[in-house]
Amino acid sequence: MSSVQITFLPANMSIPVPRGESILRAAMAAGVHINASCGGEGVCGKCRVIIEEGSVEGEPSERISAEERVKGYRLACKTFVRTDVKVRIPVESVIDASVLRRKSPRRTATVHQIGFEEIKQQGLFVPAVEKVYLEMTPPNTQDHLPDVTRLVNHLRVEKNEHGMEVELPVIRKIPSVFREQDFKVTVTLVRPVRSSGKTQIINVQAGDTTAHNYAVAMDIGTTTVYGQLVDLGCGRVMAEHGEFNAQISYGEDVITRIMHAEKPGGLNTLQQVVIGTANKVIEAIVQESGVSRENISLITLAGNTTMTQLLLAVEPRYIRRSPYVPAASIYPPIRATDLGFALDAHVTALVYPQVSSYVGGDIVAGVMGSGMYRTEKLTLFMDIGTNAEVVIGNKDWMACAACSAGPAFEGGGIQFGMRAAKGAIEDFSINPESFEPMLMTIGNVRPKGICGSGLIVIVATLFENGVINHQGKFNRDLATPRIRENNNVYEYVLAHREATQIDRDITINEIDIDNLIRAKGAIYSGCMTLLSEVGMSFDDVEQIILAGGFGSFVDLERAMIIGMLPEVAPEKVIYVGNSSLLGARMSALTNSIRQQVVGVTNMMTNFELSETPSYYDNYVAALFLPHTDVGRFPRIKARLEELRRR
Amino acid sequence: MSSVQITFLPANMSIPVPRGESILRAAMAAGVHINASCGGEGVCGKCRVIIEEGSVEGEPSERISAEERVKGYRLACKTFVRTDVKVRIPVESVIDASVLRRKSPRRTATVHQIGFEEIKQQGLFVPAVEKVYLEMTPPNTQDHLPDVTRLVNHLRVEKNEHGMEVELPVIRKIPSVFREQDFKVTVTLVRPVRSSGKTQIINVQAGDTTAHNYAVAMDIGTTTVYGQLVDLGCGRVMAEHGEFNAQISYGEDVITRIMHAEKPGGLNTLQQVVIGTANKVIEAIVQESGVSRENISLITLAGNTTMTQLLLAVEPRYIRRSPYVPAASIYPPIRATDLGFALDAHVTALVYPQVSSYVGGDIVAGVMGSGMYRTEKLTLFMDIGTNAEVVIGNKDWMACAACSAGPAFEGGGIQFGMRAAKGAIEDFSINPESFEPMLMTIGNVRPKGICGSGLIVIVATLFENGVINHQGKFNRDLATPRIRENNNVYEYVLAHREATQIDRDITINEIDIDNLIRAKGAIYSGCMTLLSEVGMSFDDVEQIILAGGFGSFVDLERAMIIGMLPEVAPEKVIYVGNSSLLGARMSALTNSIRQQVVGVTNMMTNFELSETPSYYDNYVAALFLPHTDVGRFPRIKARLEELRRR
Repeated sequence: MSSVQITFLPANMSIPVPRGESILRAAMAAGVHINASCGGEGVCGKCRVIIEEGSVEGEPSERISAEERVKGYRLACKTFVRTDVKVRIPVESVIDASVLRRKSPRRTATVHQIGFEEIKQQGLFVPAVEKVYLEMTPPNTQDHLPDVTRLVNHLRVEKNEHGMEVELPVIRKIPSVFREQDFKVTVTLVRPVRSSGKTQIINVQAGDTTAHNYAVAMDIGTTTVYGQLVDLGCGRVMAEHGEFNAQISYGEDVITRIMHAEKPGGLNTLQQVVIGTANKVIEAIVQESGVSRENISLITLAGNTTMTQLLLAVEPRYIRRSPYVPAASIYPPIRATDLGFALDAHVTALVYPQVSSYVGGDIVAGVMGSGMYRTEKLTLFMDIGTNAEVVIGNKDWMACAACSAGPAFEGGGIQFGMRAAKGAIEDFSINPESFEPMLMTIGNVRPKGICGSGLIVIVATLFENGVINHQGKFNRDLATPRIRENNNVYEYVLAHREATQIDRDITINEIDIDNLIRAKGAIYSGCMTLLSEVGMSFDDVEQIILAGGFGSFVDLERAMIIGMLPEVAPEKVIYVGNSSLLGARMSALTNSIRQQVVGVTNMMTNFELSETPSYYDNYVAALFLPHTDVGRFPRIKARLEELRRR
Repeated sequence: MSSVQITFLPANMSIPVPRGESILRAAMAAGVHINASCGGEGVCGKCRVIIEEGSVEGEPSERISAEERVKGYRLACKTFVRTDVKVRIPVESVIDASVLRRKSPRRTATVHQIGFEEIKQQGLFVPAVEKVYLEMTPPNTQDHLPDVTRLVNHLRVEKNEHGMEVELPVIRKIPSVFREQDFKVTVTLVRPVRSSGKTQIINVQAGDTTAHNYAVAMDIGTTTVYGQLVDLGCGRVMAEHGEFNAQISYGEDVITRIMHAEKPGGLNTLQQVVIGTANKVIEAIVQESGVSRENISLITLAGNTTMTQLLLAVEPRYIRRSPYVPAASIYPPIRATDLGFALDAHVTALVYPQVSSYVGGDIVAGVMGSGMYRTEKLTLFMDIGTNAEVVIGNKDWMACAACSAGPAFEGGGIQFGMRAAKGAIEDFSINPESFEPMLMTIGNVRPKGICGSGLIVIVATLFENGVINHQGKFNRDLATPRIRENNNVYEYVLAHREATQIDRDITINEIDIDNLIRAKGAIYSGCMTLLSEVGMSFDDVEQIILAGGFGSFVDLERAMIIGMLPEVAPEKVIYVGNSSLLGARMSALTNSIRQQVVGVTNMMTNFELSETPSYYDNYVAALFLPHTDVGRFPRIKARLEELRRR
């Protein structure tokens, strides 16, 4: 999409935005405040702007009279730029131009996933599954070798392949398939993990089908199951699909799922339910890609420890009981149909290993998929969801832990918290004088609640602007009706009921803020504890890898302001998206991951934070904005001091 | 059973027999002829003898008057010896004493199966499956290793076990089993075939169950399925059972079974049917031994190529079509429940490899189980059933072939042929002057037909006594009503209708004899061809191993007289019984068999006799009694010359 330049007046602030962007979103991106309460649905009528130059489009609004329209008045949220434009923010909705610069533009992490070309250049493109076309000599009266022996001999003599293993289901196909095209066949080989291991022949097809060799990569999340269909010939993702994990009906989090699994028949139910979801995902990506199922050779799977055990129908009872012991770290290759996957009988399922009960295969997949296991840089890997798992280290050593962050980042424990879905407040700005809000929702509709990234922005912005203090308490002296006491709890009104979808005021209160502080404190202190246990500090960290659906939306500056992330240069922060899915895909494309994952998993020293003596002190110290010791955040400290001086 | 001495008068011929033996059987064993037509049922009344000394028992018979009884008259077939006895054969049923010695006593092969002590002494007692008892340290707050990791580490540190593999079904059991007796468990290990391979943990049980570790060894025969329950701790066979293979309803021989398998659904039906039979056998031996199924760790299987493919549901279509190609030689270990065996989920099925379409796993099992693969002696191994498979060689080389012997030895193609079952004529003698027969049937009942070993004895005896000539044709000049022409075919009446169970005369005719000659000719010429292809002759053979249900009953001298076996000293002939079952049992007890069987199988050079140029000439030359070149049988030649001189 091409870019156009948008300039906000009177501040004379310009930024490039994609053609077609709404003026309200452009303002938020530029750090320019426009009052807006309805999330961008066009009902509150507060975000009036005047188009002074350039071309825009957008339907007329009841909130703008015909006369005003002629003068260039528009609602910022419902007006979209077509060319370079100059937009004036009218006096009633604009604040002193000099304070505009108080808010830095939103800065998210650089998105980086290892590309196919990159792994190819590094010689890592060796799919776990390979197809080889063979033209064998048919048997005759002088040569009646058994079919399988003929195949194995041909592979040895013509292809220098040794140590072949052929499972019974393949043997069953061989006699007829060999004779379909006169002993011209394509065999599918699964490479061994260890070089001393055997190569498995998992499929045989008549004729040359080498051009069609696919894998399914899948992330089995507590909330969502994502799948990708990957072309093993060229590494391309041909289709991707996600579905809510149908296990949600049996509990939102892993603990309630485990409790359900402990009931009679519960484990089998949960296993079948998640396989049902996975099969929907497979159906969708097979349909979308138009690939024939018989050419899918592999499914690679990553999930947290509980999800993995439920997927494999391995009793998860002891995951939730001290001393929190998972059943296994490493799982062998499994026939996909044995688990109920709607894939052909020859498909092998490879499952990522687990480190501990709360650092699971999704994290190991992230470490492998993000390339952390190959880097020399001291890396802090963070996957933030219901729990936040962190890994610190590089190719030589790793320490990891699960931080009991609680569900705040997914909307749990927050009055108006919700998942990142349509209607969730995802961005926020405040008029530093009137304290009137500017809200942006997912889907530009009237707000229903607050998602995790929105929560961080809201709290950071309130703190930056002195609306709340270091302890997350509201400044009782501010003269604004937006701050009020409700049942002995102070709150800030984000949107009044008439501007919401839920017919209630949407607010954020001190309990919500406290929950967020506990959550970010758990993550920060978890990282700090890991670092200090290995004799290091945040200063040594050379890069941060953020993972999880959440990570892409986090405003890094805001996350540092609240002390969720350590203060580092934003360019050191990489966002890799769903790293569990990435790791699953990478292990299909590069067999060296399978070869190294066991070593990496064994290398990952797990810390149970609750049993690590220094953790509690670190945690308590982190229950401030940004931290008890603000000296750890020199940039933030300077900014806050500058802001407060005004 | 204790022995007593029986002396026949007037010949004054003594032999030891078991106390309780019938006088008729004792006479047959001694080579003393007594006319007897009803097989030993006591109805023909011809086998009258006089007890002159000693004590016998037996019910009175209508055929012996009270007066005669007082004089010592008895029916030989219904009178059983209790002490040393002297028995006179009355003048009307006895022949000239001087010719009595014309018939040598029956001489069967020495039965020899490798004993448990023998394999133990040779260091070969290393069961493929072993149980190990472990007392692990339970997890605690400082040690939350995953259960499987704890197990693998314990095995490495405490038992020096490396390279462990744990399949998913075992992982599923581990969490609860570990906690049943506080991490005191017994694990079942399957040893790898190659030393570089991994040891599989296939089961885990709470507490110490090492004293209970069993295997099922099974021979999947075309006609019969035999199973043994073997104690892997001491090598003892705890129970044995055989059932007719229920596939018989779909065809008596492998060819008709293959044809059925080619029909839609046919293969699955045959697979399920044979598994049904196998499960009956398992049920019987489990019941008989009182063993708990959860302590059965292994099932070892041997069968011919067709039976193996049907058992494994591998399309057998190309076994019966030139160039006669089986699907596979080597099959991987298979989960027993995947095949439908009524065994626990952890049980592994090991299947003997095949050499070719007609030299199958039963023969390989025989070669392994009989110890042929370890001997330096040049050995001729023969398994005689519907087809006769022969293997020649020793530990350094082997050549094998299937001889199209046809079903004559199992009663096929013989007018009154039948399997070795109650009522089958199994032994035969002839009065060299009157040509009256002496018949012995299985079960001592009136005859219904002739079984394979009976057929050999009948033809050999007729030939020895000049009733038939070298070509198997009756001497038309003999003055006896027993020889007659019937529909242009000469025949000998073995039993008149009133002495049979079938209300018809039981005869043997020239067509029957011709079929037998073709069958024995196929075996002899097959062996000869194999030997000449490797530049050897029968003179080089140091031992003959006979296998198959049939082999135990074959009178070696008679088999040599008809030229079915080469002329060797009888003590060189060993009978090993059901060698397929023996091989299955041995592979459960000694893992070195599994380690070496692939090498042995690959070493077994298969000859398709029909495509070996020298075979046809050898075959034609063998279509005589004993052979065109009687010089190959010097002992027989001398005997015949002596007999004919009289």
